[in-house]
Amino acid sequence: MVKPLSQEDGIFLSDLKKLLDFSPKNLDYYKKAFTHRSIKLIDTKGNPINYERLEFLGDAMLGAVIASYLYKKAPEGSEGYLTQMRSKIVSREHLNELGKDLNLIQFVKSNIDQANVGDNIHGNIFEALIGAIYMDRGYNFCQKFINVYVITDYVDLDKLEGKITSYKGLIIEWCQKNKKKYSFDTYEDTGNESVKHFSVKISIDGEQIAKGRATSKKKAEEQASKRVFFTLQNEIAES
Amino acid sequence: MVKPLSQEDGIFLSDLKKLLDFSPKNLDYYKKAFTHRSIKLIDTKGNPINYERLEFLGDAMLGAVIASYLYKKAPEGSEGYLTQMRSKIVSREHLNELGKDLNLIQFVKSNIDQANVGDNIHGNIFEALIGAIYMDRGYNFCQKFINVYVITDYVDLDKLEGKITSYKGLIIEWCQKNKKKYSFDTYEDTGNESVKHFSVKISIDGEQIAKGRATSKKKAEEQASKRVFFTLQNEIAES
Repeated sequence: MVKPLSQEDGIFLSDLKKLLDFSPKNLDYYKKAFTHRSIKLIDTKGNPINYERLEFLGDAMLGAVIASYLYKKAPEGSEGYLTQMRSKIVSREHLNELGKDLNLIQFVKSNIDQANVGDNIHGNIFEALIGAIYMDRGYNFCQKFINVYVITDYVDLDKLEGKITSYKGLIIEWCQKNKKKYSFDTYEDTGNESVKHFSVKISIDGEQIAKGRATSKKKAEEQASKRVFFTLQNEIAES
Repeated sequence: MVKPLSQEDGIFLSDLKKLLDFSPKNLDYYKKAFTHRSIKLIDTKGNPINYERLEFLGDAMLGAVIASYLYKKAPEGSEGYLTQMRSKIVSREHLNELGKDLNLIQFVKSNIDQANVGDNIHGNIFEALIGAIYMDRGYNFCQKFINVYVITDYVDLDKLEGKITSYKGLIIEWCQKNKKKYSFDTYEDTGNESVKHFSVKISIDGEQIAKGRATSKKKAEEQASKRVFFTLQNEIAES
Protein backbone atom coordinates (compact mmCIF):
# COMPACT_ATOMS: atom_id res chain seq x y z
CA MET A 1 0.00 0.00 0.00
CA VAL A 2 1.35 3.39 -0.91
CA LYS A 3 1.29 5.86 1.95
CA PRO A 4 -0.80 8.91 1.07
CA LEU A 5 1.19 12.14 0.81
CA SER A 6 0.84 14.81 3.47
CA GLN A 7 -0.80 18.01 2.27
CA GLU A 8 2.58 19.76 2.23
CA ASP A 9 4.18 16.95 0.19
CA GLY A 10 1.21 16.96 -2.18
CA ILE A 11 1.72 20.66 -2.92
CA PHE A 12 5.48 20.14 -3.29
CA LEU A 13 4.93 17.25 -5.70
CA SER A 14 2.49 19.25 -7.79
CA ASP A 15 4.86 22.26 -7.94
CA LEU A 16 7.77 19.97 -8.86
CA LYS A 17 5.82 18.32 -11.68
CA LYS A 18 5.15 21.71 -13.24
CA LEU A 19 8.82 22.65 -12.93
CA LEU A 20 10.30 19.35 -14.13
CA ASP A 21 7.75 18.36 -16.73
CA PHE A 22 7.88 14.76 -15.47
CA SER A 23 6.73 13.01 -12.33
CA PRO A 24 9.37 12.51 -9.64
CA LYS A 25 9.51 9.00 -8.18
CA ASN A 26 11.19 9.73 -4.87
CA LEU A 27 10.42 13.10 -3.28
CA ASP A 28 13.19 12.67 -0.69
CA TYR A 29 15.91 13.57 -3.18
CA TYR A 30 14.16 16.83 -4.05
CA LYS A 31 13.50 17.68 -0.42
CA LYS A 32 17.20 17.19 0.23
CA ALA A 33 18.06 19.37 -2.77
CA PHE A 34 16.21 22.25 -1.15
CA THR A 35 17.41 21.80 2.44
CA HIS A 36 20.06 24.22 3.66
CA ARG A 37 22.64 23.00 6.17
CA SER A 38 21.38 25.51 8.75
CA ILE A 39 18.36 23.22 9.25
CA LYS A 40 20.71 20.66 10.86
CA LEU A 41 18.65 17.63 9.82
CA ILE A 42 20.19 14.15 10.09
CA ASP A 43 19.08 10.81 8.68
CA THR A 44 18.63 7.56 10.66
CA LYS A 45 22.36 6.80 10.31
CA GLY A 46 23.41 10.20 11.59
CA ASN A 47 24.41 11.62 8.20
CA PRO A 48 23.44 15.26 7.66
CA ILE A 49 20.57 15.94 5.25
CA ASN A 50 21.23 19.01 3.12
CA TYR A 51 21.85 19.87 -0.50
CA GLU A 52 25.65 19.96 -0.49
CA ARG A 53 26.34 16.42 -1.67
CA LEU A 54 23.66 16.66 -4.36
CA GLU A 55 25.23 19.93 -5.48
CA PHE A 56 28.53 18.09 -6.03
CA LEU A 57 26.74 15.42 -8.05
CA GLY A 58 24.66 17.92 -10.06
CA ASP A 59 27.74 19.97 -10.89
CA ALA A 60 29.39 16.86 -12.34
CA MET A 61 26.30 15.91 -14.36
CA LEU A 62 25.93 19.45 -15.67
CA GLY A 63 29.57 19.42 -16.77
CA ALA A 64 29.09 16.13 -18.61
CA VAL A 65 25.83 17.09 -20.33
CA ILE A 66 27.22 20.45 -21.46
CA ALA A 67 30.40 18.75 -22.71
CA SER A 68 28.31 16.34 -24.76
CA TYR A 69 26.16 19.21 -26.11
CA LEU A 70 29.19 21.24 -27.14
CA TYR A 71 30.96 18.24 -28.67
CA LYS A 72 28.01 17.66 -30.99
CA LYS A 73 27.06 21.31 -31.56
CA ALA A 74 30.53 22.62 -32.41
CA PRO A 75 32.30 19.98 -34.52
CA GLU A 76 34.86 22.58 -35.56
CA GLY A 77 35.68 23.65 -32.00
CA SER A 78 39.04 22.67 -30.53
CA GLU A 79 39.39 21.18 -27.06
CA GLY A 80 40.33 24.68 -25.85
CA TYR A 81 37.21 26.21 -27.38
CA LEU A 82 34.97 23.54 -25.83
CA THR A 83 36.56 24.06 -22.41
CA GLN A 84 36.15 27.83 -22.62
CA MET A 85 32.52 27.70 -23.76
CA ARG A 86 31.67 25.26 -21.02
CA SER A 87 33.15 27.50 -18.32
CA LYS A 88 31.01 30.35 -19.57
CA ILE A 89 27.86 28.23 -19.56
CA VAL A 90 28.41 26.82 -16.08
CA SER A 91 29.78 30.02 -14.56
CA ARG A 92 28.61 30.80 -11.03
CA GLU A 93 26.88 33.93 -12.33
CA HIS A 94 25.00 32.02 -14.99
CA LEU A 95 23.88 29.28 -12.59
CA ASN A 96 22.68 31.85 -10.06
CA GLU A 97 20.65 33.48 -12.82
CA LEU A 98 19.11 30.13 -13.80
CA GLY A 99 18.20 29.30 -10.19
CA LYS A 100 16.67 32.75 -9.70
CA ASP A 101 14.63 32.67 -12.87
CA LEU A 102 13.14 29.31 -11.84
CA ASN A 103 12.48 30.83 -8.41
CA LEU A 104 13.88 27.71 -6.74
CA ILE A 105 14.38 29.66 -3.52
CA GLN A 106 10.63 29.31 -2.85
CA PHE A 107 11.26 25.62 -2.03
CA VAL A 108 14.25 26.12 0.25
CA LYS A 109 14.11 25.28 3.93
CA SER A 110 16.66 27.22 5.89
CA ASN A 111 17.13 28.67 9.36
CA ILE A 112 18.90 31.68 7.95
CA ASP A 113 17.07 34.77 6.83
CA GLN A 114 16.68 34.70 3.04
CA ALA A 115 18.28 38.11 2.86
CA ASN A 116 21.46 36.67 4.39
CA VAL A 117 21.99 33.47 2.41
CA GLY A 118 23.91 35.21 -0.34
CA ASP A 119 23.52 35.06 -4.08
CA ASN A 120 25.23 31.73 -4.66
CA ILE A 121 22.46 29.74 -3.07
CA HIS A 122 20.45 30.11 -6.30
CA GLY A 123 23.11 28.36 -8.39
CA ASN A 124 23.85 25.82 -5.67
CA ILE A 125 20.27 24.62 -5.43
CA PHE A 126 19.99 24.61 -9.20
CA GLU A 127 22.92 22.16 -9.26
CA ALA A 128 21.46 20.17 -6.34
CA LEU A 129 18.19 19.85 -8.26
CA ILE A 130 20.13 18.35 -11.19
CA GLY A 131 21.75 15.91 -8.75
CA ALA A 132 18.32 14.97 -7.40
CA ILE A 133 16.98 14.35 -10.91
CA TYR A 134 19.97 12.09 -11.64
CA MET A 135 19.43 10.05 -8.47
CA ASP A 136 15.68 9.87 -9.00
CA ARG A 137 15.46 9.19 -12.75
CA GLY A 138 18.96 8.77 -14.19
CA TYR A 139 21.15 10.43 -16.78
CA ASN A 140 18.64 10.83 -19.61
CA PHE A 141 16.11 12.78 -17.53
CA CYS A 142 18.95 14.90 -16.25
CA GLN A 143 20.12 15.61 -19.78
CA LYS A 144 16.59 16.54 -20.88
CA PHE A 145 16.14 18.96 -17.98
CA ILE A 146 19.48 20.63 -18.77
CA ASN A 147 18.56 20.82 -22.45
CA VAL A 148 15.33 22.65 -21.64
CA TYR A 149 16.49 24.98 -18.89
CA VAL A 150 20.14 25.58 -19.59
CA ILE A 151 20.69 25.02 -23.26
CA THR A 152 17.50 26.09 -25.05
CA ASP A 153 16.89 29.16 -22.95
CA TYR A 154 20.35 30.37 -22.18
CA VAL A 155 23.07 29.00 -24.34
CA ASP A 156 23.99 30.83 -27.42
CA LEU A 157 27.43 30.11 -28.73
CA ASP A 158 27.42 33.21 -30.97
CA LYS A 159 26.69 35.39 -28.00
CA LEU A 160 29.16 33.59 -25.73
CA GLU A 161 31.82 34.00 -28.37
CA GLY A 162 31.04 37.70 -28.49
CA LYS A 163 29.72 37.73 -32.07
CA ILE A 164 26.34 39.05 -30.92
CA THR A 165 26.51 41.39 -27.96
CA SER A 166 22.85 42.35 -27.72
CA TYR A 167 19.82 40.66 -29.21
CA LYS A 168 17.72 43.73 -28.40
CA GLY A 169 20.09 45.89 -30.44
CA LEU A 170 20.09 43.39 -33.26
CA ILE A 171 16.27 43.20 -33.40
CA ILE A 172 15.87 47.02 -33.31
CA GLU A 173 18.47 47.45 -36.03
CA TRP A 174 16.78 44.84 -38.21
CA CYS A 175 13.33 46.46 -37.73
CA GLN A 176 14.67 49.92 -38.57
CA LYS A 177 16.49 48.66 -41.64
CA ASN A 178 13.40 46.83 -42.86
CA LYS A 179 10.94 49.61 -41.94
CA LYS A 180 9.04 47.49 -39.40
CA LYS A 181 7.29 48.96 -36.37
CA TYR A 182 8.41 47.38 -33.13
CA SER A 183 7.42 47.75 -29.49
CA PHE A 184 8.92 46.50 -26.23
CA ASP A 185 6.21 46.39 -23.57
CA THR A 186 8.19 45.96 -20.33
CA TYR A 187 6.56 45.91 -16.86
CA GLU A 188 7.19 44.73 -13.31
CA ASP A 189 5.74 41.25 -12.81
CA THR A 190 6.93 39.89 -9.47
CA GLY A 191 3.73 38.08 -8.49
CA ASN A 192 4.10 36.10 -5.28
CA GLU A 193 7.82 35.61 -5.69
CA SER A 194 10.42 36.84 -3.27
CA VAL A 195 12.70 38.29 -5.92
CA LYS A 196 11.51 41.17 -8.11
CA HIS A 197 10.74 40.08 -11.70
CA PHE A 198 10.05 41.85 -14.97
CA SER A 199 8.14 40.73 -18.03
CA VAL A 200 8.34 41.99 -21.57
CA LYS A 201 6.29 41.46 -24.70
CA ILE A 202 7.82 42.25 -28.07
CA SER A 203 5.56 43.04 -31.01
CA ILE A 204 6.58 43.66 -34.61
CA ASP A 205 4.13 45.33 -36.98
CA GLY A 206 1.42 44.92 -34.34
CA GLU A 207 1.91 41.17 -33.91
CA GLN A 208 3.26 39.84 -30.63
CA ILE A 209 6.30 37.68 -31.44
CA ALA A 210 7.78 36.71 -28.08
CA LYS A 211 7.68 37.19 -24.34
CA GLY A 212 10.39 37.17 -21.72
CA ARG A 213 10.54 37.20 -17.93
CA ALA A 214 13.58 37.62 -15.71
CA THR A 215 14.96 39.37 -12.66
CA SER A 216 15.91 42.59 -14.43
CA LYS A 217 14.41 44.64 -17.27
CA LYS A 218 17.56 44.18 -19.31
CA LYS A 219 17.62 40.39 -18.91
CA ALA A 220 13.92 40.02 -19.70
CA GLU A 221 14.34 42.14 -22.85
CA GLU A 222 17.38 40.17 -23.97
CA GLN A 223 15.62 36.88 -23.37
CA ALA A 224 12.55 37.97 -25.36
CA SER A 225 14.73 39.48 -28.11
CA LYS A 226 16.65 36.25 -28.40
CA ARG A 227 13.37 34.39 -28.82
CA VAL A 228 12.34 36.86 -31.53
CA PHE A 229 15.71 36.27 -33.18
CA PHE A 230 15.23 32.51 -33.26
CA THR A 231 11.60 32.85 -34.39
CA LEU A 232 12.49 35.15 -37.27
CA GLN A 233 15.93 33.68 -37.92
CA ASN A 234 15.37 32.96 -41.60
CA GLU A 235 13.92 36.38 -42.39
CA ILE A 236 16.72 38.08 -40.45
CA ALA A 237 19.39 36.01 -42.19
CA GLU A 238 17.98 36.92 -45.63
CA SER A 239 17.92 40.65 -45.02
CA MET B 1 24.34 -3.39 -47.81
CA VAL B 2 27.01 -3.16 -45.15
CA LYS B 3 30.47 -2.51 -46.50
CA PRO B 4 32.89 -5.28 -45.52
CA LEU B 5 35.65 -4.17 -43.16
CA SER B 6 39.22 -3.89 -44.38
CA GLN B 7 41.60 -6.41 -42.83
CA GLU B 8 43.10 -3.71 -40.65
CA ASP B 9 39.66 -2.60 -39.40
CA GLY B 10 38.68 -6.21 -38.78
CA ILE B 11 41.67 -6.71 -36.48
CA PHE B 12 40.99 -3.37 -34.75
CA LEU B 13 37.34 -4.33 -34.20
CA SER B 14 38.27 -7.72 -32.79
CA ASP B 15 40.86 -6.16 -30.43
CA LEU B 16 38.36 -3.52 -29.33
CA LYS B 17 35.67 -6.09 -28.57
CA LYS B 18 38.06 -7.91 -26.24
CA LEU B 19 38.96 -4.67 -24.51
CA LEU B 20 35.45 -3.24 -24.22
CA ASP B 21 33.49 -6.40 -23.64
CA PHE B 22 30.80 -5.13 -26.04
CA SER B 23 30.60 -4.60 -29.77
CA PRO B 24 31.29 -1.05 -30.98
CA LYS B 25 28.76 0.27 -33.51
CA ASN B 26 30.84 2.99 -35.12
CA LEU B 27 34.57 2.31 -35.41
CA ASP B 28 35.27 5.92 -36.46
CA TYR B 29 34.94 7.23 -32.91
CA TYR B 30 37.52 4.73 -31.68
CA LYS B 31 39.88 5.44 -34.55
CA LYS B 32 39.67 9.11 -33.65
CA ALA B 33 40.29 8.30 -29.97
CA PHE B 34 43.62 6.78 -30.94
CA THR B 35 44.77 9.37 -33.48
CA HIS B 36 47.45 11.81 -32.34
CA ARG B 37 47.40 15.36 -33.74
CA SER B 38 50.81 14.80 -35.36
CA ILE B 39 49.02 12.68 -38.00
CA LYS B 40 47.39 15.91 -39.30
CA LEU B 41 44.24 14.17 -40.58
CA ILE B 42 41.21 16.29 -41.51
CA ASP B 43 37.60 15.31 -42.21
CA THR B 44 35.55 16.26 -45.30
CA LYS B 45 34.65 19.61 -43.68
CA GLY B 46 38.25 20.48 -42.90
CA ASN B 47 38.02 19.76 -39.16
CA PRO B 48 41.08 18.03 -37.68
CA ILE B 49 40.69 14.37 -36.72
CA ASN B 50 42.49 13.57 -33.48
CA TYR B 51 41.68 12.53 -29.95
CA GLU B 52 41.71 15.94 -28.27
CA ARG B 53 37.98 16.71 -28.43
CA LEU B 54 37.07 13.17 -27.34
CA GLU B 55 39.48 13.55 -24.45
CA PHE B 56 37.54 16.64 -23.30
CA LEU B 57 34.29 14.69 -23.52
CA GLY B 58 35.68 11.59 -21.80
CA ASP B 59 37.12 13.66 -18.98
CA ALA B 60 33.65 15.12 -18.32
CA MET B 61 31.97 11.69 -18.43
CA LEU B 62 34.60 10.21 -16.13
CA GLY B 63 34.01 13.04 -13.65
CA ALA B 64 30.26 12.46 -13.71
CA VAL B 65 30.43 8.67 -13.36
CA ILE B 66 32.94 8.86 -10.50
CA ALA B 67 30.81 11.53 -8.77
CA SER B 68 27.78 9.26 -9.00
CA TYR B 69 29.80 6.27 -7.72
CA LEU B 70 31.14 8.23 -4.74
CA TYR B 71 27.73 9.75 -3.95
CA LYS B 72 26.26 6.26 -3.59
CA LYS B 73 29.29 4.54 -2.08
CA ALA B 74 30.05 7.08 0.64
CA PRO B 75 26.72 8.29 2.07
CA GLU B 76 28.55 9.72 5.05
CA GLY B 77 31.07 11.69 2.97
CA SER B 78 30.77 15.47 2.88
CA GLU B 79 30.94 17.44 -0.37
CA GLY B 80 34.59 18.16 0.46
CA TYR B 81 35.36 14.46 0.94
CA LEU B 82 33.67 13.54 -2.35
CA THR B 83 35.60 16.25 -4.20
CA GLN B 84 38.91 15.14 -2.71
CA MET B 85 38.35 11.43 -3.43
CA ARG B 86 37.36 12.21 -6.99
CA SER B 87 40.53 14.22 -7.62
CA LYS B 88 42.60 11.29 -6.43
CA ILE B 89 40.75 8.83 -8.65
CA VAL B 90 40.97 10.98 -11.78
CA SER B 91 44.50 12.26 -11.13
CA ARG B 92 46.77 12.47 -14.15
CA GLU B 93 49.06 9.85 -12.60
CA HIS B 94 46.20 7.43 -12.05
CA LEU B 95 44.82 7.87 -15.56
CA ASN B 96 48.26 7.34 -17.08
CA GLU B 97 48.56 4.12 -15.11
CA LEU B 98 45.13 2.94 -16.33
CA GLY B 99 45.98 3.70 -19.95
CA LYS B 100 49.33 1.93 -19.65
CA ASP B 101 47.91 -1.16 -18.02
CA LEU B 102 45.36 -1.51 -20.83
CA ASN B 103 48.22 -1.00 -23.29
CA LEU B 104 46.14 1.48 -25.26
CA ILE B 105 49.29 2.88 -26.86
CA GLN B 106 49.34 -0.17 -29.17
CA PHE B 107 46.36 1.38 -31.04
CA VAL B 108 47.76 4.90 -31.37
CA LYS B 109 48.61 6.38 -34.75
CA SER B 110 51.18 9.11 -34.44
CA ASN B 111 53.98 10.67 -36.44
CA ILE B 112 56.04 11.15 -33.32
CA ASP B 113 58.37 8.51 -31.97
CA GLN B 114 56.66 6.67 -29.11
CA ALA B 115 59.62 7.43 -26.90
CA ASN B 116 58.95 11.15 -27.34
CA VAL B 117 55.18 11.40 -26.81
CA GLY B 118 55.49 11.73 -23.05
CA ASP B 119 53.74 9.92 -20.25
CA ASN B 120 50.46 11.82 -20.36
CA ILE B 121 49.43 10.31 -23.66
CA HIS B 122 48.38 7.14 -21.79
CA GLY B 123 45.84 9.01 -19.65
CA ASN B 124 44.74 11.21 -22.54
CA ILE B 125 43.83 8.29 -24.78
CA PHE B 126 42.16 6.54 -21.85
CA GLU B 127 39.88 9.58 -21.53
CA ALA B 128 39.40 9.78 -25.30
CA LEU B 129 38.33 6.14 -25.31
CA ILE B 130 35.66 6.97 -22.71
CA GLY B 131 34.50 9.84 -24.93
CA ALA B 132 34.31 7.46 -27.91
CA ILE B 133 32.25 4.96 -25.91
CA TYR B 134 29.85 7.76 -24.93
CA MET B 135 29.40 8.90 -28.53
CA ASP B 136 29.07 5.34 -29.80
CA ARG B 137 26.84 3.77 -27.16
CA GLY B 138 25.76 6.42 -24.62
CA TYR B 139 26.07 7.06 -20.93
CA ASN B 140 25.24 3.60 -19.58
CA PHE B 141 27.95 1.81 -21.57
CA CYS B 142 30.36 4.50 -20.53
CA GLN B 143 29.44 4.00 -16.88
CA LYS B 144 29.86 0.23 -17.16
CA PHE B 145 33.31 0.57 -18.74
CA ILE B 146 34.40 2.94 -15.97
CA ASN B 147 33.00 0.61 -13.33
CA VAL B 148 35.04 -2.29 -14.65
CA TYR B 149 38.32 -0.56 -15.42
CA VAL B 150 38.49 2.35 -13.02
CA ILE B 151 36.36 1.46 -10.06
CA THR B 152 36.63 -2.31 -9.58
CA ASP B 153 40.32 -2.55 -10.30
CA TYR B 154 41.66 0.67 -8.94
CA VAL B 155 39.42 2.49 -6.57
CA ASP B 156 39.73 1.74 -2.95
CA LEU B 157 38.45 4.45 -0.70
CA ASP B 158 40.28 3.04 2.36
CA LYS B 159 43.53 3.19 0.50
CA LEU B 160 42.84 6.62 -1.01
CA GLU B 161 42.00 7.90 2.46
CA GLY B 162 45.32 6.53 3.66
CA LYS B 163 43.86 3.92 5.99
CA ILE B 164 45.60 1.08 4.13
CA THR B 165 49.00 2.01 2.74
CA SER B 166 50.03 -1.37 1.36
CA TYR B 167 47.90 -4.41 0.60
CA LYS B 168 51.05 -6.51 0.27
CA GLY B 169 52.09 -5.55 3.80
CA LEU B 170 48.61 -6.22 5.11
CA ILE B 171 48.45 -9.69 3.52
CA ILE B 172 51.91 -10.68 4.79
CA GLU B 173 51.10 -9.44 8.28
CA TRP B 174 47.83 -11.36 8.29
CA CYS B 175 49.56 -14.57 7.09
CA GLN B 176 52.28 -14.31 9.72
CA LYS B 177 49.80 -13.62 12.49
CA ASN B 178 47.67 -16.58 11.43
CA LYS B 179 50.60 -18.92 10.73
CA LYS B 180 49.83 -19.30 7.05
CA LYS B 181 52.48 -19.96 4.40
CA TYR B 182 52.45 -17.41 1.61
CA SER B 183 54.36 -16.95 -1.63
CA PHE B 184 54.62 -14.11 -4.15
CA ASP B 185 55.70 -15.50 -7.51
CA THR B 186 56.70 -12.39 -9.47
CA TYR B 187 58.16 -12.48 -13.00
CA GLU B 188 58.61 -10.31 -16.09
CA ASP B 189 55.71 -10.84 -18.49
CA THR B 190 55.91 -8.22 -21.24
CA GLY B 191 54.73 -10.42 -24.10
CA ASN B 192 54.30 -8.48 -27.34
CA GLU B 193 53.62 -5.20 -25.64
CA SER B 194 55.74 -2.13 -26.02
CA VAL B 195 55.90 -1.34 -22.32
CA LYS B 196 57.56 -3.76 -19.89
CA HIS B 197 55.05 -5.67 -17.72
CA PHE B 198 55.26 -7.89 -14.66
CA SER B 199 52.98 -10.63 -13.44
CA VAL B 200 52.59 -12.04 -9.98
CA LYS B 201 50.77 -15.02 -8.50
CA ILE B 202 50.00 -15.08 -4.80
CA SER B 203 49.49 -18.42 -3.06
CA ILE B 204 48.48 -19.00 0.54
CA ASP B 205 48.99 -22.43 2.10
CA GLY B 206 49.79 -23.79 -1.35
CA GLU B 207 46.59 -22.52 -2.99
CA GLN B 208 46.78 -19.79 -5.62
CA ILE B 209 44.45 -16.99 -4.51
CA ALA B 210 45.01 -14.17 -7.00
CA LYS B 211 47.07 -12.89 -9.90
CA GLY B 212 48.13 -9.40 -10.88
CA ARG B 213 49.79 -7.78 -13.88
CA ALA B 214 51.08 -4.25 -14.24
CA THR B 215 53.96 -2.12 -15.45
CA SER B 216 56.08 -2.51 -12.31
CA LYS B 217 56.71 -5.34 -9.84
CA LYS B 218 55.39 -3.20 -7.02
CA LYS B 219 52.14 -2.33 -8.81
CA ALA B 220 51.52 -5.92 -9.89
CA GLU B 221 52.07 -7.13 -6.32
CA GLU B 222 49.78 -4.46 -4.87
CA GLN B 223 47.09 -5.28 -7.43
CA ALA B 224 47.26 -9.01 -6.68
CA SER B 225 47.40 -8.37 -2.92
CA LYS B 226 44.33 -6.18 -3.14
CA ARG B 227 42.53 -8.99 -4.95
CA VAL B 228 43.60 -11.41 -2.21
CA PHE B 229 42.30 -8.90 0.33
CA PHE B 230 38.88 -8.72 -1.31
CA THR B 231 38.75 -12.51 -1.79
CA LEU B 232 39.56 -13.23 1.85
CA GLN B 233 37.91 -10.10 3.24
CA ASN B 234 35.66 -11.93 5.71
CA GLU B 235 38.45 -14.12 7.09
CA ILE B 236 40.78 -11.14 7.40
CA ALA B 237 38.11 -9.04 9.12
CA GLU B 238 37.47 -11.80 11.67
CA SER B 239 41.10 -12.25 12.65
